[in-house]
Amino acid sequence: MTPDTYTLETIDTPAALIDLPRMQHNIARMQHRMNALGVKFRPHVKTTKCLDVVRAQLAAGAQGITVSTLKEAEAFFAAGIKDILYAVGIVATKLPRAMALRKRGCDLKLVVDNAEAAHAVVDYARTHGERCEVWIEVDTDGHRSGITPEQDALLDVGRILKDGGLDVGGVMTHAGSSYDLNDRAALAALAEQERAGCVRAAQRLREAGVPCAAVSVGSTPTALATEHLEGVTEVRAGVYVFFDLVMHNVGVCAMDEIALSVLTTVIGHQPDKGWVIVDAGWMAMSRDRGTAKQSHDFGYGQPCALDGTPLEGLTLIGANQEHGILAASDGSVRDDLVARFPVGTKLRVLPNHACATGAQFPEYQAVSSRGAVQTWARFHGW
Amino acid sequence: MTPDTYTLETIDTPAALIDLPRMQHNIARMQHRMNALGVKFRPHVKTTKCLDVVRAQLAAGAQGITVSTLKEAEAFFAAGIKDILYAVGIVATKLPRAMALRKRGCDLKLVVDNAEAAHAVVDYARTHGERCEVWIEVDTDGHRSGITPEQDALLDVGRILKDGGLDVGGVMTHAGSSYDLNDRAALAALAEQERAGCVRAAQRLREAGVPCAAVSVGSTPTALATEHLEGVTEVRAGVYVFFDLVMHNVGVCAMDEIALSVLTTVIGHQPDKGWVIVDAGWMAMSRDRGTAKQSHDFGYGQPCALDGTPLEGLTLIGANQEHGILAASDGSVRDDLVARFPVGTKLRVLPNHACATGAQFPEYQAVSSRGAVQTWARFHGW
Repeated sequence: MTPDTYTLETIDTPAALIDLPRMQHNIARMQHRMNALGVKFRPHVKTTKCLDVVRAQLAAGAQGITVSTLKEAEAFFAAGIKDILYAVGIVATKLPRAMALRKRGCDLKLVVDNAEAAHAVVDYARTHGERCEVWIEVDTDGHRSGITPEQDALLDVGRILKDGGLDVGGVMTHAGSSYDLNDRAALAALAEQERAGCVRAAQRLREAGVPCAAVSVGSTPTALATEHLEGVTEVRAGVYVFFDLVMHNVGVCAMDEIALSVLTTVIGHQPDKGWVIVDAGWMAMSRDRGTAKQSHDFGYGQPCALDGTPLEGLTLIGANQEHGILAASDGSVRDDLVARFPVGTKLRVLPNHACATGAQFPEYQAVSSRGAVQTWARFHGW
Repeated sequence: MTPDTYTLETIDTPAALIDLPRMQHNIARMQHRMNALGVKFRPHVKTTKCLDVVRAQLAAGAQGITVSTLKEAEAFFAAGIKDILYAVGIVATKLPRAMALRKRGCDLKLVVDNAEAAHAVVDYARTHGERCEVWIEVDTDGHRSGITPEQDALLDVGRILKDGGLDVGGVMTHAGSSYDLNDRAALAALAEQERAGCVRAAQRLREAGVPCAAVSVGSTPTALATEHLEGVTEVRAGVYVFFDLVMHNVGVCAMDEIALSVLTTVIGHQPDKGWVIVDAGWMAMSRDRGTAKQSHDFGYGQPCALDGTPLEGLTLIGANQEHGILAASDGSVRDDLVARFPVGTKLRVLPNHACATGAQFPEYQAVSSRGAVQTWARFHGW
């Protein structure tokens, strides 16, 4: 953290703003829910890659973190966080870097979903005389990686790990297809499918004599829609800390719960077209067009006034690298926009996908309830 | 530059690879063409944000650079490059930072396309007793910013700058709509429209008594399609240095001229779906789906063997943050992929848009003809 030195009026644009009261509200909402459901909460820090945000999540009660890259694991371990789940399937070439973290005292858990990777970890641990905790990825909705709960491969992988002398820590799954839904009942049904599938996988492993203490599920939509988590020990979610327009369309946040926005400045106009040109192009917003296939297409983002109030009927309809085009959502040529948003006007734009937009910036500008701004570093790369 | 320490076999994935022979070929091709057309070449460095690449462009004959952010201007000026065109419309709040560069000896040229911005620069220069060179942005294809050549606003802005005591350096335009074409004749026609419009704008300014030495045009497609550049003094282009799948669809490069690729590792499979899971998701490839609306949709990228040979009939059909899904381009379930690409296999993926993909990485891995790899830093942010 740096001392408060900036305000929204003096900060350079484009900038990635965190609305701190909203972020704290989102953190408290999720943690309270997990406490009520009786499970540990292990936030996925790939959304922010920011130590200040993660410290706020841990302070609220989170236990351990989930990462998507070894760079995240290294950065957060360096900051004192030990309980880390690396939730992307490990391969042999990444083992030296991963095991180096374990040797330094990091309680890093690796994930596999196939026999080759399981053998690779076994071989590495045996060759180097090291212990390693491995979790098995379970596929409960067919959207990405993992072994389905009833496949023989699940027990094969479990036995390879156990017989190879590794600590089989548990199973984990991620119902990422929840992003495609927008109905409370469907979300609750998918959450139950995610829960039941992961619990079933754990049960099969245990029956086969493979220990399986952790049963880890999660995505922001299913975490917020699930009705009970019997048999589950922990939940993972990431984007809930900021939310975004995709999550708004899914139906799990209100517009005024979105904590990330891009601060931008009007740099010109094309009056004949009803265009306001701003300095938030796709390099700032990202190329994520996740709302394009949803019920409400927000283009490259939802423009708001500087105080965060959405500008109804306006959309960031286009983006070049450093130029965004703000215009009427309905394609009409509005003749009031030049006078309403003169050159130099500062606006905020809510993003489609907070994980993608955050990644475009080397730092966040964290804005307190009194308007003070602190710069919070984030990192990128692998 | 760092000493050669890595090879493609030892490097961590995902990584952004530059094929150096291809890059040098692309640089030479463009510079040779500009020399033949009798114009200066001012590459747009927003594509790479990498000093090593820019030094290669300057060594080949480029004169000055174009930037899209003040951070680029600061970074390249710190490396000794003085002649810099900041090709995004300036606003009052950015003037202190821009003028600080000029005071330190940077020959930074600013761009305006409206009276408010012109007045802001005049007022700043007058208040601070400083000189400033300003160019006027001309709109020749209606795709973004700029004043069309026949608009009264062109002369109004020119007079504001001149009467305000600023150096009016010239006019610049960018026919970005060339990215939407895929036909040589149409590209040549747009290039002529870009040239004629910019020359006309310069002529009108000169007739009105406003000096206009520089006439600057450019986009990679129009630069490669133009038949003559009478009246033009310089050309700008950026993505040509790497090329990408969008440019391949536009028709201005062969597949084997694409110099940027993402090195990735196979981390798993979903055999029932014919999926190969790789560790290049959208965080590595970017969310840019620029080929989606073109004649050939390359999904999230074109997979290639480690030697760069495209894998015919295969596409990166989907992407999560750190997971890419490689499968048959035609949607069929190929049963040969698991055996063909076992876990641990390294592949390369050609990107849709080199500017967007490069921006996902803190550094490039520059691969020489003999396979040696050097790490070249790049920066991001504003």
